Amino acid sequence: MALIVQKFGGTSVGSVERIRSVARRVAKWRAAGHDLVVVPSAMAGETNRLIALAHELQPHPDARELDVVAATGEQVSVGLLAMALIELGVQARSYAGWQVKVLTDSSHGKARIVAIDGERLRNDLAEGRVVVVAGYQGVDAKGNVTTLGRGGSDTSAVALAAALEADECQIFTDVDGVYTADPRIVPEARRLHTVTFEEMLEMASAGSKVLQIRSVEFAGKYRVPTRVLSSLTDPAMAVDEEAQSGTLITFEEDPHMAMEKAVVSGVAAQRDEAKITVPGVPDKPGIAYAILGPIADANIDVDMIVQNVSHDGMTDLSFTVHRNDYPRAMKILKGQVQPHIKCRDVTGDERIAKVSIVGLGMRSHAGTAAKMFRTLAEEGINIQMISTSEIKISVVIEEKYAELAVRVLHKVFELDQE
Amino acid sequence: MALIVQKFGGTSVGSVERIRSVARRVAKWRAAGHDLVVVPSAMAGETNRLIALAHELQPHPDARELDVVAATGEQVSVGLLAMALIELGVQARSYAGWQVKVLTDSSHGKARIVAIDGERLRNDLAEGRVVVVAGYQGVDAKGNVTTLGRGGSDTSAVALAAALEADECQIFTDVDGVYTADPRIVPEARRLHTVTFEEMLEMASAGSKVLQIRSVEFAGKYRVPTRVLSSLTDPAMAVDEEAQSGTLITFEEDPHMAMEKAVVSGVAAQRDEAKITVPGVPDKPGIAYAILGPIADANIDVDMIVQNVSHDGMTDLSFTVHRNDYPRAMKILKGQVQPHIKCRDVTGDERIAKVSIVGLGMRSHAGTAAKMFRTLAEEGINIQMISTSEIKISVVIEEKYAELAVRVLHKVFELDQE
Repeated sequence: MALIVQKFGGTSVGSVERIRSVARRVAKWRAAGHDLVVVPSAMAGETNRLIALAHELQPHPDARELDVVAATGEQVSVGLLAMALIELGVQARSYAGWQVKVLTDSSHGKARIVAIDGERLRNDLAEGRVVVVAGYQGVDAKGNVTTLGRGGSDTSAVALAAALEADECQIFTDVDGVYTADPRIVPEARRLHTVTFEEMLEMASAGSKVLQIRSVEFAGKYRVPTRVLSSLTDPAMAVDEEAQSGTLITFEEDPHMAMEKAVVSGVAAQRDEAKITVPGVPDKPGIAYAILGPIADANIDVDMIVQNVSHDGMTDLSFTVHRNDYPRAMKILKGQVQPHIKCRDVTGDERIAKVSIVGLGMRSHAGTAAKMFRTLAEEGINIQMISTSEIKISVVIEEKYAELAVRVLHKVFELDQE
Repeated sequence: MALIVQKFGGTSVGSVERIRSVARRVAKWRAAGHDLVVVPSAMAGETNRLIALAHELQPHPDARELDVVAATGEQVSVGLLAMALIELGVQARSYAGWQVKVLTDSSHGKARIVAIDGERLRNDLAEGRVVVVAGYQGVDAKGNVTTLGRGGSDTSAVALAAALEADECQIFTDVDGVYTADPRIVPEARRLHTVTFEEMLEMASAGSKVLQIRSVEFAGKYRVPTRVLSSLTDPAMAVDEEAQSGTLITFEEDPHMAMEKAVVSGVAAQRDEAKITVPGVPDKPGIAYAILGPIADANIDVDMIVQNVSHDGMTDLSFTVHRNDYPRAMKILKGQVQPHIKCRDVTGDERIAKVSIVGLGMRSHAGTAAKMFRTLAEEGINIQMISTSEIKISVVIEEKYAELAVRVLHKVFELDQE
C-alpha cells in the first residue's frame, strides 16, 4: 500500500461540516490500507482575519510577531481535523510545524524550507496513525515560528512528500485538474491526465493558478509525483476512481509519457499585468541594471523583460509588472531613473494581456512560434512584445483580444482533441 | 530596578484598542526602568469559540487535540501585544509555552507545570526586551502542547515569577483588589492592602473569585509576592501610585504584617452549591468511601464534607457539590449507593448558601466561632452545617439569608474599620 500526502485548501476546511467531509475522504483512503499524511490550510478567511488584526496594531507589523499570529490558523485546523478523524474511529494525531519539525530559514513571512525531520511522523505512521501536519509554517534554527507566505501549504505538502519519500502528493482544490485552457474561456478545453512538471511550471507562471509556483518547483526538484484533484466530489467516491482523477504532474524521463505528448499542452492568459517601455536608451553595459535595479529595490516583481538589438547605439527596454505595482513603478522610473540615465521618455500601458502557449513538444518541433504568430495575425491581433523559453511562448497583446487569442490558439493547436 | 511579571486577563486584551492600552501600561513600567515579563490571556471569547468548534466536531473532544486548538488563543494575544509594544518603540518579543519552555505533565486540559526554563527569557531581559509569554499553556516531555485549564494564565504568571525570581507578580483584573466582603453586598466593604496567602487561599475556595486557587497555591509554595490590581485605571497612572494599588498577597513570616492583622480579614458567600445528606448510615470503616467514591468516579467535585458523631452505631453524612452537578449526584446516590449501603434515604437541598469568615488571627483568638454563630442566631438564621479549618469557618444556611449574613458578619467583626 502507498504512502500518500493529501493537502486540503482553506475552502475545503472552511466550516465544521467541511472538515467532517475532509475527514470522511481521508478515512476512506485509510480504510483502503494507505498510510496518510494530511496537510490542511487554515479555515477560509482565518489567516486574513489574523493579519487584519495585526495591521490594526501596526501598519507594518513586526515580521517575527506576524508569523507568531498568522501560524495559529493552521494549528486550529490540524487539531480540528484530527478530532474529526478520531470521531470517525480513525487513529490520528496533529502536529504544528515546530513539532515535526519543519526547519526553515529565518525569512519571516516568506521562509524557505531547509529540512524536514520525518522521524516522528514515520513512527506515527508505523503505529497506524494518520498524521495531520500544519502547512504554511515552520520553525527556524533559533526556535522562532516562521511562515512560508501565501499558498505555502502547497509547498509544505510537497516538501513533506519529498522528506517522507511518499508515493504521491495529492493537492485537493476547487478545480478538478489542469486544463488545456481556462474552461470559462474555451468550453472545449480538456482536462490533462498528465502534465510534466516543466509545463506545469510554465503554466503556473503563465497565469494558470492551480498550484503555487514554489510548490511546483519543489515537486520538480525532489521528483515528487503530485496530483491536482477536486475536493468537491463525493467524499465516498471509490478510492480506485479518485486515484485516477485530476491531473498528475510527471517527469519527462518517462518515455511513455514523452512519446504521447502533443506539441502544445495548454494555452493561458494573464490579464493583471502592465507593460512599461523605456525607449531610446544607450546600448551600453549596466543600462538594464540602471533601469531595473530601482524597481527591484522597491520590491516590485518584474515578469517579462524584452530588449531587442540596438540601432545607432540606442535600444528600447520593455518589461511587465503586476498591474497593482504599475503606478509605483512609473513613479520610480520617471522620478529616479529618467533623470539618471537621461532617456527621452518612459511609456506604459495597463490595458494589455499576456497570452502563452506551453508544451514540452515545442523543443523539437520547429514552426510552433510561426503558427502562433500567424494565427494571431489572421485574427487581426497585433503582437506588442514576444518572449520565449524552451517550452513556452508568451506574447503581449491588447487586453480586449485576450479571450479571442486563447480560443483561436486552443483550436489551431488541436487542444480540444484527445 | 525590579523584575516584574504582569498578567492581563481576556477582557483586558479583548480588542485591538484594549491591547494598545495594555501596551501603554507596560511601556510606562518599562520606561520607569523595570524589567518586564507580560502574560496576556486569550482575547475575551476566543477560547470559548475554539472549544465550541471542537465540540461541534466531537461531543467529547480528544484531549490532546483540544489543547492544540485551545492554545492558539494565547499565541495570537502574545504576538499582537508584542506588535503593540514595538509600535510604541518598546523592544519586545513573544513566546509560546513550548518556546520558553514551560514544561508540564501530560494531563491535557489540566496540566501541571513541572519546570520552567528561564534561560531564554533572561537573555532577552538582559538585552533590554520586554518578553510576552503565552499563559495557560505548556509542552510535555514528549513535545505535545498542553493547557493548564481555566484560569491557567494566572498560574502561568505566578510560575514564571517563581522561575525568574521576580520581585513581584502583578495580576491585572477587573476588580481593584481583595475586599473584606463583596462590595455589591456590603457597601462598607474595604479593600485590603495586604492579605496573607493562606487567607487568600481560603477566600478563593470560599467564593471570592479574584484569583484562581491554583495560582494562589503556587504563589504560596514559591513565596511569590503577588499583587491583584485593576486594569481599568488610566494606563498613564503614575508608576509609584500603581505600585501601591490593589492588594498584595504576603507571607505570615513578616512580623510587621502579622502584628497589624485583624482577627477576621474577610467574609464571603458562595451561592452555587447544593447540599446532600445521607442519613442513618452505619458508622463503620469504609462507609464514607462507599458514598463519595462513586461521586468522585463521576468527576463531581465535593466541597464541604461533614460527619458528626454517631448514635446507636448510625450517623449522617452530609456534603456539598456544585449546583450544576446536583441532579447527577442525586441520581448516582439513589441509583447506585442507596441499594448498596442500604441507607434509609438520600435528601438534598439546592436552596442553600455557604458563608465563610476567613482570617489568620483566628488561630490565636478563641471565641471567633461563637461570635459568628451568635450573630447569625440573633438574626434568626439557622445554621444547617458547619465546617472549619484553621483560619476559616464556613456555615451552610438557607440561601435567602446569604446577603444578610454577610452584612451582619462584616459589621460584627468590624471589617468596615481600618
